[in-house]
Amino acid sequence: MRLAAGLDFGTESARLVLVDVETGAEAATVVHPYPHGVLTRALPDGTPLAGDWALQHPGDYLAALEHLLREAVRIAAGGAIVGIGLDCTASTVLPVKRDGTALCLLPEYAGQPHAWVKLWKHHAAQRQADRINAMRPPFLDLYGSRTSSEWLHAKSLQMLEEAPQIFAAADRMIEAGDWLVWQLTGHEVRSVCQAGFKAHWQPEDGYPPAALLAGLHPAFPSLLDKLGPPRPVGTRAGGLTAAWADRTGLREGVPVAVAVIDAHAAFPGLGVDGPGTLVMVMGTSTCHLLLSRARVPVQGISGVVADSVLPGFYCYEAGQAATGDALEWWVRTLAWAGDGPAEALFDRLNREAADLSPGAGGLVAVDWWNGSRTPLVNADLSAVMAGLTVGTTPAEVYRSIVEATACGTRQVIELFEAGRGIEPVTGLRVCGGLSRSTVVMQIYADVTGRTLHAAATPHASARGAAVYGALAAGSAGGGYNAPEEALARMAAAGFTAYRPDPAAHARYADVYALYREMHRHFGEGGTDLLRRLKALHT
Amino acid sequence: MRLAAGLDFGTESARLVLVDVETGAEAATVVHPYPHGVLTRALPDGTPLAGDWALQHPGDYLAALEHLLREAVRIAAGGAIVGIGLDCTASTVLPVKRDGTALCLLPEYAGQPHAWVKLWKHHAAQRQADRINAMRPPFLDLYGSRTSSEWLHAKSLQMLEEAPQIFAAADRMIEAGDWLVWQLTGHEVRSVCQAGFKAHWQPEDGYPPAALLAGLHPAFPSLLDKLGPPRPVGTRAGGLTAAWADRTGLREGVPVAVAVIDAHAAFPGLGVDGPGTLVMVMGTSTCHLLLSRARVPVQGISGVVADSVLPGFYCYEAGQAATGDALEWWVRTLAWAGDGPAEALFDRLNREAADLSPGAGGLVAVDWWNGSRTPLVNADLSAVMAGLTVGTTPAEVYRSIVEATACGTRQVIELFEAGRGIEPVTGLRVCGGLSRSTVVMQIYADVTGRTLHAAATPHASARGAAVYGALAAGSAGGGYNAPEEALARMAAAGFTAYRPDPAAHARYADVYALYREMHRHFGEGGTDLLRRLKALHT
Repeated sequence: MRLAAGLDFGTESARLVLVDVETGAEAATVVHPYPHGVLTRALPDGTPLAGDWALQHPGDYLAALEHLLREAVRIAAGGAIVGIGLDCTASTVLPVKRDGTALCLLPEYAGQPHAWVKLWKHHAAQRQADRINAMRPPFLDLYGSRTSSEWLHAKSLQMLEEAPQIFAAADRMIEAGDWLVWQLTGHEVRSVCQAGFKAHWQPEDGYPPAALLAGLHPAFPSLLDKLGPPRPVGTRAGGLTAAWADRTGLREGVPVAVAVIDAHAAFPGLGVDGPGTLVMVMGTSTCHLLLSRARVPVQGISGVVADSVLPGFYCYEAGQAATGDALEWWVRTLAWAGDGPAEALFDRLNREAADLSPGAGGLVAVDWWNGSRTPLVNADLSAVMAGLTVGTTPAEVYRSIVEATACGTRQVIELFEAGRGIEPVTGLRVCGGLSRSTVVMQIYADVTGRTLHAAATPHASARGAAVYGALAAGSAGGGYNAPEEALARMAAAGFTAYRPDPAAHARYADVYALYREMHRHFGEGGTDLLRRLKALHT
Repeated sequence: MRLAAGLDFGTESARLVLVDVETGAEAATVVHPYPHGVLTRALPDGTPLAGDWALQHPGDYLAALEHLLREAVRIAAGGAIVGIGLDCTASTVLPVKRDGTALCLLPEYAGQPHAWVKLWKHHAAQRQADRINAMRPPFLDLYGSRTSSEWLHAKSLQMLEEAPQIFAAADRMIEAGDWLVWQLTGHEVRSVCQAGFKAHWQPEDGYPPAALLAGLHPAFPSLLDKLGPPRPVGTRAGGLTAAWADRTGLREGVPVAVAVIDAHAAFPGLGVDGPGTLVMVMGTSTCHLLLSRARVPVQGISGVVADSVLPGFYCYEAGQAATGDALEWWVRTLAWAGDGPAEALFDRLNREAADLSPGAGGLVAVDWWNGSRTPLVNADLSAVMAGLTVGTTPAEVYRSIVEATACGTRQVIELFEAGRGIEPVTGLRVCGGLSRSTVVMQIYADVTGRTLHAAATPHASARGAAVYGALAAGSAGGGYNAPEEALARMAAAGFTAYRPDPAAHARYADVYALYREMHRHFGEGGTDLLRRLKALHT
């Protein structure tokens, strides 16, 4: 039996899936939660964090990596692990020494918040993102004209300005996924997926140039010395080091693939091999991915990068910053006074929400519980809900949040389709935690008017990572050389179809019009009330 | 010992307070909940009710009346009950036969929703109110240019149009308070307070004229045959009938005062005897009352009526349709998943909200959980909350609701003060359930920038009713002839003062500006989104 290992480093935990290279069968999956989770209030030593911060502990990643690979060996039980693929949240970045040592793991930096891993949803660099955007640099043409506070440049500039000694001490600034590949192979190998989507790297121009960085801070051009050229996704980064072979029981030299952004790994995981199908990874946030043969400007997208998923295609990425997160906020709110399990509350809300009609009892909301990613790329925005009455029920609020996020997705589709040359979106293929809610899925089908296929597998990204692991091995190493062959053998097979109900879709035309009006008013220049509101609070 | 009985018929229960006429001491208070509460989903026989309906069972009133008066006799224990005063929610109206029999208590009408008591917060007559307002009749000059869906004309027109046979069968259309006085005395005696504030009666013109009513429906002028001239508040309506003396143990002929609106009874109850002090009755909704020597148009007030509370003054009334109701909605929402007592949730929310700063964690809301009474008189409006994030806590939402209602009160004060000739508002005197929350009271002081006095007594209105009972008795009957004398002896004495914190008040200037912006946008012509949203739901 030949197995490929897919490792998926998410926001709260890491997961392993072992996929049979020939049959696509899952030999096993294992999940390992991060002991420190997301650090939002304080460092492990108690150092307090300001609002909007979100850090992680790189030791959690290493512990997960070791545990999951040992489990892989145990479960393979003598079968061959031909290759390892690895996906990770992004832009989740950390400062490291030249030898790869994370600064925060050195005693002299352990009490410095900027020495730690800044998780993708660290939103404290909005000011820096605003200043980059205010310069209107040409490289942003491929990124919806805006960089995000979540991305590498804003986060690095925040570090330089708030903790220059950490910035100076960092020999390299690196994505967590690339750092993990470095750990496994002993070599720094970066991914075109991470570099392209989160650090504005493009094949023609490389990273944003020194002259531009100098305009933000005189020392900022040295960021270029802390980066490095990326390699295409689906290629081999290197072989497993002796040290990691020792730690895990794997043989030395097992091929390790170049890292990939977690959401993007869903493409091969879901078996999507070309344009026309929007891939949606719906977890705490939603990532929308679309392949196309054309590269054109699209308003408000997160980016478009060539060959970052499959050779020969541009991959467009858009996103919504809070989907599952917004629903979890509501469940957490409702659980405040009780002591029941969140799972049971979700079930009850889904059940009651399914009995409601479009418009959720006269509520409409804009879905900015964590700011807006696409199309406004603005973390200062917050959600607005209209239509509350003394008769409003918890299930109505829940459904209105679902509907708001579905309207956000419809808006993303319309933005893509407004881009000349991009092939029409005829279907949606969905994975991630939210895809397990039938009411959520049906609302998305009804709001968008498109048939939606929800993957049966709860770990499409990890499976996609395994596909990349098989490609890193190559046919000589027991894997594959051709991506289409790997996809045909190893992609997920089971899907549940949700077809739009014409009457509900018609009704949602009205709801969507109200959503768009609120979106325009509060987000597109109608008023700056939300900005003033946020300023009042901070 | 000479005692006056004050009866207060509220939304959920009726209450008795016995006040010593000489010392003002409370001999006792008794509360009697209505067994049927508020009927919003179905009649007692199961007949379903449409949305926005809110009815009551007149049998509940009678049972409470009998129980409370028997208790009065028992507690007085031989002491003299010199007079009975009675206040009631308004406009709470019912159709009755010529002899005072409520239509809904006759078997042939018991299954007809329109035969029952329409509680003040029955909001299903908005369409009718809109049509009256569209005529712009001159009589509305004294009512903020708008009639309310809550008032007698809208409710009666709804009855005529939806159940003409009930309208025809109703010999009289009467306020519940006036109907209770009728029960006790055997004579139909209406109050200038109810007629003036809820049926547009004015001494110069009487009720709105037949010609105008005919413009709404050919049969509507017959409404005038179902009404009757009102008498001043503070006068004697009649003496207790032999039948009620039998039922209760009181002596026949005990003087019964003309009824008064529950909120208005708080004036004598709180000892306010002139202009400059805004009386706020804060329960499920808030009623703002202000005396003045001037009668001028004020935008959006509910009404202004002469001699309806104290002789020689105009009384202005304004209101907010949901204050305690909005907070209770939030507590009910939080209790959905738990099983703890609401009281404990209120305590916890008040405690946590007290630790927050103005702006409630970056939230701002407009307080239309039950539509807007003053200044927009529009039940189609609903609340809007802006600033929600995944970090928003239950206490922040709670505080933002309190702040929104406090901003609504500040707006009412500014409307009053914009009326030329109305004396400046220098203080606030508060009673009702919400006055027991120190955090709510302090927020009101800080938002309005005025010192607020919260009454220690939890039943200022019932005490005020007792004052009217003593006035009905007159000095010959063991009570008083002069209102100022009755007030001096019998008004509530204990108050807690809340003084505005200058820093908090300054900060609230920003919050109030945001509130006003949302108020303008969603309520004053910026958008009709809330109307469209409501239309979508119904």
